[in-house]
Amino acid sequence: MSHNSFGHLFRVTTWGESHGPAIGCVVDGCPPGLPLDESWIQPFLDRRRPGQSRFTTQRREPDQVRILSGTYEGRTTGTPVALQIENTDQRSRDYGAIADRYRPGHADMAYDAKYGLRDPRGGGRSSARETAMRVAAGAIAQRILGDQVRIRGALVRIGQHAIDPARWNWDEVDRNPFFCPDAETVPVWEDYLDSVRKNGSSVGAVIALEATGVPPGWGAPLYGKLDADLASALMGINAVKAVEIGAGFEAALLTGEENADPMRMENGAVAFDGNRAGGILGGISTGQPIIARFAVKPTSSILTPVPSVSSIGETVMVSTKGRHDPCVGIRAVPVGEAMLACTLADHMLRHRGQTGR
Amino acid sequence: MSHNSFGHLFRVTTWGESHGPAIGCVVDGCPPGLPLDESWIQPFLDRRRPGQSRFTTQRREPDQVRILSGTYEGRTTGTPVALQIENTDQRSRDYGAIADRYRPGHADMAYDAKYGLRDPRGGGRSSARETAMRVAAGAIAQRILGDQVRIRGALVRIGQHAIDPARWNWDEVDRNPFFCPDAETVPVWEDYLDSVRKNGSSVGAVIALEATGVPPGWGAPLYGKLDADLASALMGINAVKAVEIGAGFEAALLTGEENADPMRMENGAVAFDGNRAGGILGGISTGQPIIARFAVKPTSSILTPVPSVSSIGETVMVSTKGRHDPCVGIRAVPVGEAMLACTLADHMLRHRGQTGR
Amino acid sequence: MSHNSFGHLFRVTTWGESHGPAIGCVVDGCPPGLPLDESWIQPFLDRRRPGQSRFTTQRREPDQVRILSGTYEGRTTGTPVALQIENTDQRSRDYGAIADRYRPGHADMAYDAKYGLRDPRGGGRSSARETAMRVAAGAIAQRILGDQVRIRGALVRIGQHAIDPARWNWDEVDRNPFFCPDAETVPVWEDYLDSVRKNGSSVGAVIALEATGVPPGWGAPLYGKLDADLASALMGINAVKAVEIGAGFEAALLTGEENADPMRMENGAVAFDGNRAGGILGGISTGQPIIARFAVKPTSSILTPVPSVSSIGETVMVSTKGRHDPCVGIRAVPVGEAMLACTLADHMLRHRGQTGR
Amino acid sequence: MSHNSFGHLFRVTTWGESHGPAIGCVVDGCPPGLPLDESWIQPFLDRRRPGQSRFTTQRREPDQVRILSGTYEGRTTGTPVALQIENTDQRSRDYGAIADRYRPGHADMAYDAKYGLRDPRGGGRSSARETAMRVAAGAIAQRILGDQVRIRGALVRIGQHAIDPARWNWDEVDRNPFFCPDAETVPVWEDYLDSVRKNGSSVGAVIALEATGVPPGWGAPLYGKLDADLASALMGINAVKAVEIGAGFEAALLTGEENADPMRMENGAVAFDGNRAGGILGGISTGQPIIARFAVKPTSSILTPVPSVSSIGETVMVSTKGRHDPCVGIRAVPVGEAMLACTLADHMLRHRGQTGR
Repeated sequence: MSHNSFGHLFRVTTWGESHGPAIGCVVDGCPPGLPLDESWIQPFLDRRRPGQSRFTTQRREPDQVRILSGTYEGRTTGTPVALQIENTDQRSRDYGAIADRYRPGHADMAYDAKYGLRDPRGGGRSSARETAMRVAAGAIAQRILGDQVRIRGALVRIGQHAIDPARWNWDEVDRNPFFCPDAETVPVWEDYLDSVRKNGSSVGAVIALEATGVPPGWGAPLYGKLDADLASALMGINAVKAVEIGAGFEAALLTGEENADPMRMENGAVAFDGNRAGGILGGISTGQPIIARFAVKPTSSILTPVPSVSSIGETVMVSTKGRHDPCVGIRAVPVGEAMLACTLADHMLRHRGQTGR
Repeated sequence: MSHNSFGHLFRVTTWGESHGPAIGCVVDGCPPGLPLDESWIQPFLDRRRPGQSRFTTQRREPDQVRILSGTYEGRTTGTPVALQIENTDQRSRDYGAIADRYRPGHADMAYDAKYGLRDPRGGGRSSARETAMRVAAGAIAQRILGDQVRIRGALVRIGQHAIDPARWNWDEVDRNPFFCPDAETVPVWEDYLDSVRKNGSSVGAVIALEATGVPPGWGAPLYGKLDADLASALMGINAVKAVEIGAGFEAALLTGEENADPMRMENGAVAFDGNRAGGILGGISTGQPIIARFAVKPTSSILTPVPSVSSIGETVMVSTKGRHDPCVGIRAVPVGEAMLACTLADHMLRHRGQTGR
Repeated sequence: MSHNSFGHLFRVTTWGESHGPAIGCVVDGCPPGLPLDESWIQPFLDRRRPGQSRFTTQRREPDQVRILSGTYEGRTTGTPVALQIENTDQRSRDYGAIADRYRPGHADMAYDAKYGLRDPRGGGRSSARETAMRVAAGAIAQRILGDQVRIRGALVRIGQHAIDPARWNWDEVDRNPFFCPDAETVPVWEDYLDSVRKNGSSVGAVIALEATGVPPGWGAPLYGKLDADLASALMGINAVKAVEIGAGFEAALLTGEENADPMRMENGAVAFDGNRAGGILGGISTGQPIIARFAVKPTSSILTPVPSVSSIGETVMVSTKGRHDPCVGIRAVPVGEAMLACTLADHMLRHRGQTGR
Repeated sequence: MSHNSFGHLFRVTTWGESHGPAIGCVVDGCPPGLPLDESWIQPFLDRRRPGQSRFTTQRREPDQVRILSGTYEGRTTGTPVALQIENTDQRSRDYGAIADRYRPGHADMAYDAKYGLRDPRGGGRSSARETAMRVAAGAIAQRILGDQVRIRGALVRIGQHAIDPARWNWDEVDRNPFFCPDAETVPVWEDYLDSVRKNGSSVGAVIALEATGVPPGWGAPLYGKLDADLASALMGINAVKAVEIGAGFEAALLTGEENADPMRMENGAVAFDGNRAGGILGGISTGQPIIARFAVKPTSSILTPVPSVSSIGETVMVSTKGRHDPCVGIRAVPVGEAMLACTLADHMLRHRGQTGR
């Protein structure tokens, strides 16, 4: 058991605080012989990097990843891969004002309750900065999964403004700063988020994920189910409050007839009509695309003062003056993709261990 | 790593198939000196037992639990507690017809894909019967948590029919066969489920859970978060497709101002206005009630024939003629309570190990 | 983490006290499709069973194992295999006299110190009876390893009387009640143990283990080393105080020249001259036979009164009047074989998971 | 499961190769509020550092440790502590000659067998250099254990030359370059090792460890036994081939009467006469000093050519021309102390989690 690790055969341990000298992770269980260097990982990090548009935090970090172990002449050796990113833009002065007062909706109060002390600089360990390491680990996971398994994510809702699924186009996702798959929704979100940003406010979002090419059989019932592990991986991302697989909460509204995904033989293989199961039955992949969605709450760092308490027990008002993120859900897209990749890579290796296939 | 265990310091390993001689579990990590005998566990099982009303499966199992180890003179000794329930009403003849054909929406096809073979009798390992052991383990977890922590669950939606939260009354939950907290909704569900049952159909449901009395500090960031572990525990229950904590998906619709739970000092302690966080911030309990909801899909065992495939690759029609459950969500209430109890007990012990408190 | 489980991909959880209704284990991670029924496991248990000669405890247990889950029509299904043995010869009256006084060298005092209470009947959980489940699990491990991997054990020392390695003959091992590989030593041990038994005394022993047919590559550095895992598995057997691999303690006496196992090519494969490494280098198997030895202390249950203390803090004299084992090391042979088999099976699956081979 | 981690509640993950840019570790589970900075850890590393006398390898590394996370204002925060040491003296040219040929007794052949490739520079991951991180983690473990628990190690044998236990004096250990507790043996070892060094040979050694002040009750039967975990921790150190606790292999020679450690009440507490148990009964600490010994084989890096094979299957002669260590057992003393400290810290936290004490 480790509080800061996830996965079993593909196992990631992360460390580092927002304003310490660096953040990093150790990726253990990476099979030997895979091509791997920084140039493979960096593009994944660049997708997540803050400061790329006016819609994400203005903290500017080059987020240059460095591989410190586990490769030799550009290939993995089977030994642990250590990754590290220096923290270069730390500005801890921004956080002095809130060192002694708990930001509502942040983890400040909870960390103090648990540990009796905390690193107040920029959220310390609870900062979204740590998610850079999840993305880096996800890049390695993608190497293990190979070209056959394709993982994609998109933002499908910002506050009251959802996309129109009928206009879904994966090609749009990389053409706008929102990872939005619906071109017509982009200007709506631009206007809306500009107003949110100007008000010093924030807003929630919903992210959709898909993995195609996953063969049937991954996932180990009953307590290593693929959907349960995925739920844990996604719920554990900062600010996430809800996760659903396939039809999700809508399945509660349906009858058995409506919810069934009929099967038939097609070209000698099992084919499905519909994917309300989200590609997972009994905790095991079926060969259909894996479908998941998760909701991100609005960040609690807002300009409007909110009643709160101080660490010495006074009622105070708290507002956040530093750089802030009007919609943390945007950067959650590559983080969600990474957690899906890591979960799948782990189950690929576990399945291979248990069954030899 | 074990595919059939969950928890770390409070660790449960279950075994058994629907139509084998027995099902059981081993509960490891139970602290010594706690009063425990069968009479404590049995009432928890009785709440979940099938065949108690016409709205759940007619399989009749006394579900009499037996403690085989880990106690001496009515107290736990700190050694593993083995629990066992005989399977007495197995009727495997009902399942002969579907031994070679995959029921759509069931795990049949996925188990065959993973293992290359499966136990076809009643779903084998994937049967909801296994959840009896989760409930038994949850009873032990509740012993560890003590009287201070109170765990309750309720059914809040069956298909299109949701309760009215304004009429919520916990006292109602044990007065009807649905664990429904809203007396006025009970007759609506009775009528609706009678028609579903008569049609040989099924329908989904939503369950709400609450734990009060959890002190602040439980949950271990970043990869042992209380909410992530809870998401895994609930998503891993048979037929669950979605999980949310606190405001859940609704948080995506809100602004930071709307979503904040303001804090203030009250009688020397931190008090909150609102609980959109569901009692968890940064993966750590805050002292507020823990709030979770999860959605259960309609069971795929329906009388209406659905296109499917056989294990030898033919397209066939499948319908389920045996006893069936019009709404498996009903019995998911005590199962959800149990998984919440187990998750909390584990984190209580983990917190104690890490911090000494 | 579980206090009562070992292994990772092949994972065994045991439960049960010496004088409870039964003992059992859950074997998780057994690959699907292997032939398995009670008739495979029983002969392994019969080798370990007490009461087979006058040199082991006279407790008589048929030790009839029952498989309660995880197989269908004689083959494993990939789901957990639950095994159980009823306790039929419990005679707890023998232990009344020592319920309140700590037997020196036994775990009584330590259990009370840890848990604040204990099950005094026959050692409870610390009884050697539990090792029956290790042997049963080892039988399943042997199924996974297949015919290629052959595991054997022998007793090589009882007290001051060691065998002569020059007379080693594996065929002798099953022809005497000691698992002794040296026919000329058998009568020596018979005479010696008869006198030990008549004096109500006991004596220690050394066991040697060998596994042939293990391919190179099993074992995962740096903290899943095959030798480290094997050391843990053997040291964890009741009464074991020492473990060595290959040359063991003798390696400390040697120079680098003396200790080297020179390599050469032979028929296209690597061959070694000598096996001081015991088949493991850098924690990884080399393809040579795995060689291990472990020492078992004399049981503390002796007729001679020894000064001790009671649970309420009096100085008392303790002697053991019940059935006793003059040399627990004898029955440690099949237990050691089983722990070696389990360790190898786990590493076989882990290696497969990590590397696909 | 992680191949490169050990411990459960106190969990250490190490990474890094001998000739990569750095080595490091992540220490997870360190309780909050403990004083910790580099000045606490550095002295532990300095004891192990190579190049301090002519009797250890001449590789010169300042081994300056840096804390990269997990502390704030000189105290631990409960979040993971990342430690790192730059590799500054790498000289990989020394190893060019052996890149393609397996050094007998080294892990070269085994790594290639497992992974299909390896980092040949200085042993890569299998180099003793990694043990620096174990020592650093051990320093943190010692902080957790507090002043009450005192851990010490000594070298008690080099090849044929053992110390005289009757002359044991802990104060001598830090007055000579061997960690030798017997002043009269020091000149004997000096002369002997000088000759070994001049011959380009090497020799094995035995290390003894002691921990005083460990309260009764640590260690979790049956598969988290303190002695089993300690056996794994020590056997996993590079070049270790044997481990014993208390009387160890000598226990096999004794009768029950000789091996018993009689108990009596003394000043209201349990006192023991003798400590053949080595402070552990039934896998649980008894309050007596924990006693362990382990044997280190002679390093295989010797000047005398030894027959071996190349990675492309030729029979070749191998000798080691670079810097080498005549007795790696010397530096194993602080490494053994560290592994004992880590094992105890883990069990202290586990015991607290399970029992609240």
